[in-house]
Amino acid sequence: MKLDFTYYNPTKIYFGKTALEHLPQELENYGKTVLLVYGKGSVKKSGLYDKIINILNQADKKTIELSGIKSNPTYLQMLEGARLVRENHVDLILAVGGGSVIDCAKGISLSAYCKGDPWERYWINFEEVDNQIVPVGSILTMAGTGSEMNGGSVITNEEKMLKNGRVYPPEVYPKFSILNPEYTYTVPKYQMASGIFDTMSHLMEQYFSGEDDNTTDYMIEGVLKSLIHSAYTALENPEDYEARSNIMWCATIGLNTVTGLSKEQDWEVHMIEHQVGAYTDCAHGAGLAVISVPYYQYIYRYGMDKFVRFAKNVWNLPVETMTKEEAALAGIDKLHEFIVKLGLPTTLREIGATEEMLASIANSTVQGGGYKYMTEEDILHVLKASF
Amino acid sequence: MKLDFTYYNPTKIYFGKTALEHLPQELENYGKTVLLVYGKGSVKKSGLYDKIINILNQADKKTIELSGIKSNPTYLQMLEGARLVRENHVDLILAVGGGSVIDCAKGISLSAYCKGDPWERYWINFEEVDNQIVPVGSILTMAGTGSEMNGGSVITNEEKMLKNGRVYPPEVYPKFSILNPEYTYTVPKYQMASGIFDTMSHLMEQYFSGEDDNTTDYMIEGVLKSLIHSAYTALENPEDYEARSNIMWCATIGLNTVTGLSKEQDWEVHMIEHQVGAYTDCAHGAGLAVISVPYYQYIYRYGMDKFVRFAKNVWNLPVETMTKEEAALAGIDKLHEFIVKLGLPTTLREIGATEEMLASIANSTVQGGGYKYMTEEDILHVLKASF
Repeated sequence: MKLDFTYYNPTKIYFGKTALEHLPQELENYGKTVLLVYGKGSVKKSGLYDKIINILNQADKKTIELSGIKSNPTYLQMLEGARLVRENHVDLILAVGGGSVIDCAKGISLSAYCKGDPWERYWINFEEVDNQIVPVGSILTMAGTGSEMNGGSVITNEEKMLKNGRVYPPEVYPKFSILNPEYTYTVPKYQMASGIFDTMSHLMEQYFSGEDDNTTDYMIEGVLKSLIHSAYTALENPEDYEARSNIMWCATIGLNTVTGLSKEQDWEVHMIEHQVGAYTDCAHGAGLAVISVPYYQYIYRYGMDKFVRFAKNVWNLPVETMTKEEAALAGIDKLHEFIVKLGLPTTLREIGATEEMLASIANSTVQGGGYKYMTEEDILHVLKASF
Repeated sequence: MKLDFTYYNPTKIYFGKTALEHLPQELENYGKTVLLVYGKGSVKKSGLYDKIINILNQADKKTIELSGIKSNPTYLQMLEGARLVRENHVDLILAVGGGSVIDCAKGISLSAYCKGDPWERYWINFEEVDNQIVPVGSILTMAGTGSEMNGGSVITNEEKMLKNGRVYPPEVYPKFSILNPEYTYTVPKYQMASGIFDTMSHLMEQYFSGEDDNTTDYMIEGVLKSLIHSAYTALENPEDYEARSNIMWCATIGLNTVTGLSKEQDWEVHMIEHQVGAYTDCAHGAGLAVISVPYYQYIYRYGMDKFVRFAKNVWNLPVETMTKEEAALAGIDKLHEFIVKLGLPTTLREIGATEEMLASIANSTVQGGGYKYMTEEDILHVLKASF
């Protein structure tokens, strides 16, 4: 743990089959008006919406709704939510859905009382948050992003063709999150796989940095092994509670900052995917799946020992019998195999990108990286290899 | 993650060489009067005491001191602290030291305004805390107990010959903890080893329960591997920053509840050690080292698969070439080997116990356990095997 860090995560997690039973006691901590934010109606089909409305009514709350949040939540939806918060003096924003809905809720929370243009100030110029924050609570229905226990909020500005994300300070984290793995049973298999790979990617973005011997890396290896193991079980039987609960918790712990402590981190796969997503509106995890293998094949030489360790400790490959090069590539091959088994795409073509888009995507991607600094040229190389 | 859980840990951690620089900003959150609690003077020798007093003076605080906290902090010391808090209207209790000092500070915090006898109410009858809690902050100088990020407070009632512990709710956790691994350099090797084994034991107490496939177990395996690896490095070179920082973080993460989520847990080794400690005043980790191997040799049959997994995933033993019985015992043998390498005792005799004490220790130990419920008879068996 060579790099100094501050760790503070005040989100309260209620996990398990009985998690929703804690909602009434949480509601007591907030005023009368609740903004309920959700997606395109799957929470209505599953019956969860009715349960929540019932609890809100019993708690004598005035409920306002913002629905139809897209899988890449848009800046306009966020502004609409901010308007609703201001006009109705909302006391609590309750997000019901996956990471998109929770990200949008945090964006609304930040923007409602922002002095100036929130997009410019917070998503582009990364200014310090200096306005009132409206508390957010979440009820998670899809595992993957980790948004339920962190300050991340990724918003797509459709007009500007930009998908920007940022990690806000702990005041912006959900105050509480309700995680019942059973709510994820109704997620279609492709979305489940996309969420699993999103989590996998978060863990790898944190893992692939540094040459030091850090406790955090050992923890990441453990979480990765559990995630891979439970992913295979869930693919066979999506209603295996144990597998789905492990996957849900891997997603939360995989991006609640604990698996990134004292790490430099990479995040360039996410930077590239954000722009792929802005151009194709693909599922986030699917976009990550497409980029990851070509990206790691491009950069592994710069972090060779870590890629060998990945092959050995995560995939149990007999690296002693291989050259470093072989071992590193064999680990990345296992990653490719995992993506295929998940049924996720492996080319940009499959998710609707055209060859003409590649230069624009490369040009608009935030540069950076872990073992290797990725210039526009490097990014374009990876995009072509992903095509 | 089959068992439902609530996770909420609001302690703010400042970790690293610059951690103390955050103390002034933290002090701003509290009133004028600080009770500084510390041990037997090693913080004065190291110069840390002067640094802290300097910061307190610059922050214009009125500082009251309670020093001489023993390695098994006593009920009388705790009551003395509670009296100081009441008489001086203390706003913040600042614990500087290892787990003993922090445990004592939490006990003071709980007891100062307790309605009734705190020992009877909180340590014996486990009543709900219903009085004002005085905020605690900590500056850690010894890694092991994890007290810096949890609600644990173990206190020894010398008069009653009882060492009782309990995990209090998050309101009792330190508000902030300052963790600079360099402060642990001056800890004598034996104490360092004792702290390492304390952490090891916490992780095993959480690991050895349940037959399910739980993400938490994978995380524990990762933390155990890092701890063992860094322990060997630190034994060779106690001033290896990376090793000491990993050991410090393993101790914190190993008992901040995250490595116990959705686990039944065991804790019987700790229950037995508490009474061994009450009779011998041994270092906590040393007591645990003596009990652990005979304990696990006694109970492994009841959790065979987990002990095989321990041998494979933590110690990298080729369990495929062994019977389950052989593999489980080989893992426990590796644990024994680790204890010997740490230079810790392996018999009760070495830590000052007499044969006459054994029956009284067994009789006064809280019964319980993980894979096997330990009766007084079972406990006596383990004690005799440890003698």
